[in-house]
Amino acid sequence: MKPDTKFLQRIKAIQESTNLELQKLSLPEEPRYLYDPVRYVLKGKGKRLRPILVHLTCDAFGVDEGDKMTTALAVELLHNFTLIHDDIMDQDDYRHGQKTVHKKWDESTAILSGDGVYIISQFLIAKVKTNPVEAINAFNKATLTVCEGQAYDKIYEENQQVTLDEYLLMVEKKTGVLLGVCAELGGILSNQTPEVRQRLKSYGINLGKAFQIQDDMLEIFSDPKTMGKSLGSDLTAGKQTALTILAREKYPEGWDILRNKLSEKTTEEAIPAFRKWLETHKIVSTVERLIATFVDAARKELNVVPKDKRYLLEHYTEMVLNRKK
Amino acid sequence: MKPDTKFLQRIKAIQESTNLELQKLSLPEEPRYLYDPVRYVLKGKGKRLRPILVHLTCDAFGVDEGDKMTTALAVELLHNFTLIHDDIMDQDDYRHGQKTVHKKWDESTAILSGDGVYIISQFLIAKVKTNPVEAINAFNKATLTVCEGQAYDKIYEENQQVTLDEYLLMVEKKTGVLLGVCAELGGILSNQTPEVRQRLKSYGINLGKAFQIQDDMLEIFSDPKTMGKSLGSDLTAGKQTALTILAREKYPEGWDILRNKLSEKTTEEAIPAFRKWLETHKIVSTVERLIATFVDAARKELNVVPKDKRYLLEHYTEMVLNRKK
Repeated sequence: MKPDTKFLQRIKAIQESTNLELQKLSLPEEPRYLYDPVRYVLKGKGKRLRPILVHLTCDAFGVDEGDKMTTALAVELLHNFTLIHDDIMDQDDYRHGQKTVHKKWDESTAILSGDGVYIISQFLIAKVKTNPVEAINAFNKATLTVCEGQAYDKIYEENQQVTLDEYLLMVEKKTGVLLGVCAELGGILSNQTPEVRQRLKSYGINLGKAFQIQDDMLEIFSDPKTMGKSLGSDLTAGKQTALTILAREKYPEGWDILRNKLSEKTTEEAIPAFRKWLETHKIVSTVERLIATFVDAARKELNVVPKDKRYLLEHYTEMVLNRKK
Repeated sequence: MKPDTKFLQRIKAIQESTNLELQKLSLPEEPRYLYDPVRYVLKGKGKRLRPILVHLTCDAFGVDEGDKMTTALAVELLHNFTLIHDDIMDQDDYRHGQKTVHKKWDESTAILSGDGVYIISQFLIAKVKTNPVEAINAFNKATLTVCEGQAYDKIYEENQQVTLDEYLLMVEKKTGVLLGVCAELGGILSNQTPEVRQRLKSYGINLGKAFQIQDDMLEIFSDPKTMGKSLGSDLTAGKQTALTILAREKYPEGWDILRNKLSEKTTEEAIPAFRKWLETHKIVSTVERLIATFVDAARKELNVVPKDKRYLLEHYTEMVLNRKK
């Protein structure tokens, strides 16, 4: 499926209106210790994939414009809250091309402003007019699940025994469920049956899993210019991704030998060797099939969307999966 | 007013049922990285002052038992969330006689489990049957204000120019507003008029301000055995409290000279000298009058409580102010 011009214009319009509305959120000036970092984060250059999904699902089911925009902003703030706190925990220095809050200010500022962003997201989701309590509960349930996902991520980062199933559960919680609630909220705000809501959620979860596993692929197989400098050492040190877990599970000895052999090399030297090994040992094709499984599962759920509106979410599915790193 | 036996039994019963219900909260076992610290915090030995205020206000206005207990737990969790994150920011090692989460585990664990505790509090407050969206909004507004209070606290901790008014605003936001929402929720859950809700909130805010300023006094004037070892050096280094700000504002030179003179002394030697100076310079009596002003303001608001139920909150006011450190 080729992205058509009309769809791309629509996406651009949603991104622009989301960015505009984020700037228009009426935040107090003081205390600047709290609100300056909040403003800084909301000016960040995210792709707004989550608000876009809210918009498209809401449009497919005829949700009120006000409810749609409020919810789109709420999920974007929720996402940014998790990023601010995760970036402290993971000691990441950059996010969307700008310094992370704990790097630009300090950890205390990042903890507090992350809290602030989440509380503001709560005000937004509590504004919806249709099924507000259900919307709030779905929103908070997703948030707690994302925290569970982050917890598993922290546990697994130093664990060389993680199984593919455990990894997939982590990915579902950390990445899938947030896309899941974006689609589910479209169903809640248009008062759909529990089954429709569940299937919309399942669409988002499966798409999110495919998205994250593809991210693992892109990290190793994308243009070397955009590649993280530490990637070679991350891999030899035992970074857990769908690719490396499958490599370890299928070829425990061979994978160990490869990692040892490449442990002294630079990223520029190590990555081509890793790539070649993963391809010849059919790890890449296995992961590609895994991604396809989740994409198929996602696509099937779209049957609950009215037929004449389905193309929006079909195009969205393509867009999410065809992005470049 | 002497605390009567019936009232004290009531308080004890609320504390016990709160502790029991906190233990009964159905938390998942896994991931333990997230839920073990949550369970640890909820076992802590807090005085449960905030749930008690929810109970007493709800009882004065005949709120549904389920709504009352859910809300009492929600505010206790909200309070614990702010403590977990504040303890990281303030690098405090102990809380309620046990190690803080970031000390027992690490900062990442404390950030994430603090987030978890807050999200669980959201589930609880969203369960109320009467005016749920108003309850949720009051709850979240209070939370954001507490964050603003913590932001001012962080700004002021190194600022030797803080005025008493600025300090009082910080105290209102950081401590007052949380007690304010405990009383306000009793009004929301019993469907009182906006005026009654506002006055209940004002009762809690004023009581909270009196409580915090009295805490400043207790810190310097309580039994030396319970005194923090670093208190002497905190004071010479310029810790900002109602007492020290007033001392600096009224006697800038004298206060500086005193601090310099005592800067080499141990807490045991410095504290009696600080106490004597603050008493002879009438700082203590001024602060006592300030506390009395807020207590009076709080008591006046209790006129909105049905006369035959008012004694509960009158006793509570006494209890909060007469506690020992």
